Amino acid sequence: MKDMQCRLEAFDSIPMRTQQQIHFLIEIDRMKNILRHTLLIDGSRRENDAEHSWHLALMALILFEYAPAETIDVCKVIKMALVHDLVEVYAGDTFAYDENANLDKDLREAEAAGRLFSLLPSDQCLELRGLWEEFDAEETLEAIFAASLDRLQPLIHNYLTKGHTWKEGDINKAKVLKRMDMIKRGAPALWCFVEAILQDSIQKGYLPE
Amino acid sequence: MKDMQCRLEAFDSIPMRTQQQIHFLIEIDRMKNILRHTLLIDGSRRENDAEHSWHLALMALILFEYAPAETIDVCKVIKMALVHDLVEVYAGDTFAYDENANLDKDLREAEAAGRLFSLLPSDQCLELRGLWEEFDAEETLEAIFAASLDRLQPLIHNYLTKGHTWKEGDINKAKVLKRMDMIKRGAPALWCFVEAILQDSIQKGYLPE
Repeated sequence: MKDMQCRLEAFDSIPMRTQQQIHFLIEIDRMKNILRHTLLIDGSRRENDAEHSWHLALMALILFEYAPAETIDVCKVIKMALVHDLVEVYAGDTFAYDENANLDKDLREAEAAGRLFSLLPSDQCLELRGLWEEFDAEETLEAIFAASLDRLQPLIHNYLTKGHTWKEGDINKAKVLKRMDMIKRGAPALWCFVEAILQDSIQKGYLPE
Repeated sequence: MKDMQCRLEAFDSIPMRTQQQIHFLIEIDRMKNILRHTLLIDGSRRENDAEHSWHLALMALILFEYAPAETIDVCKVIKMALVHDLVEVYAGDTFAYDENANLDKDLREAEAAGRLFSLLPSDQCLELRGLWEEFDAEETLEAIFAASLDRLQPLIHNYLTKGHTWKEGDINKAKVLKRMDMIKRGAPALWCFVEAILQDSIQKGYLPE
């Protein structure tokens, strides 16, 4: 940021509030370099957080009819999808199946959230941190649905890349089932699809029983 | 897709409507490989359409107070940002300053829209095609605001990468001003920021006068 600020003379012309907003929008460009373990569906490279968040927001829009209640606010789910991984610009991506890395994940991400969201004007800091915390708590129906999509997306990618991430992480069916359990509550009508993917993955040798 | 379909035995277990939705969500993964001319802010590589669309959706959320009317539907603007470049999965990215490529852009993109959105169930085909057409027509306030952000985002990236795309395309101030004109209507309070960026870019030698 320091290097960047010295190149931002154009910022002097805009109000402090706008400067804060633009600075935040510049800082989150780092999401495009935070790599996940999941590959793109064509297998060409690892997916990054910005692409993943975009894909998840589109999934929320297209798969909304599978949400666990008609009263769910789709706009809130889309916003959650957009911001759910933002703290990783400082905390990095934590592999879902890495038990050690997950021990201090909450602490690292809370620190990152404080640092990142405080770049924004205070009202928007509260709004975005609120969306992230709601997603992370997995309690509201919107959060449970969004979290379910966040499980389903890499499941589909893993299936279509012949179990790449499962093989890399030495993951078996029981571990994947535990990770996917959220979908039973968040998008119950899609559970049969999850089971079919796992069954076919085992049959094809992508995932050990 | 043909190669993919032969690996999708798990699809047999889900209703046709869900199959169509999942197929669409798989197909749009190609957005992650559609490269734009803009570089990431750190200059490391070219940005892709999926990342760009995510960034634009976040800009809509954060910069919404600069929209030209309070009655604007922010959720619609976010949805437009998410889908506004989807047709490029088949039509490819068309460089904004390439006059020749822009001659047949409308035709190429309309064909791509027909092909892509028809993967979806008919109600969602209409919804997404409607959002894309509304964005493309630049007539409603939501579309004008979204299109303004679609001008501002690469402007900021170009400024912070020392005019990379302008130099590559032999672009001068007049051409950039013409391209940015939309922002006067779509986010008028941000116009002084646009002018300041251009002025500083000229002073620093990123953009010829």
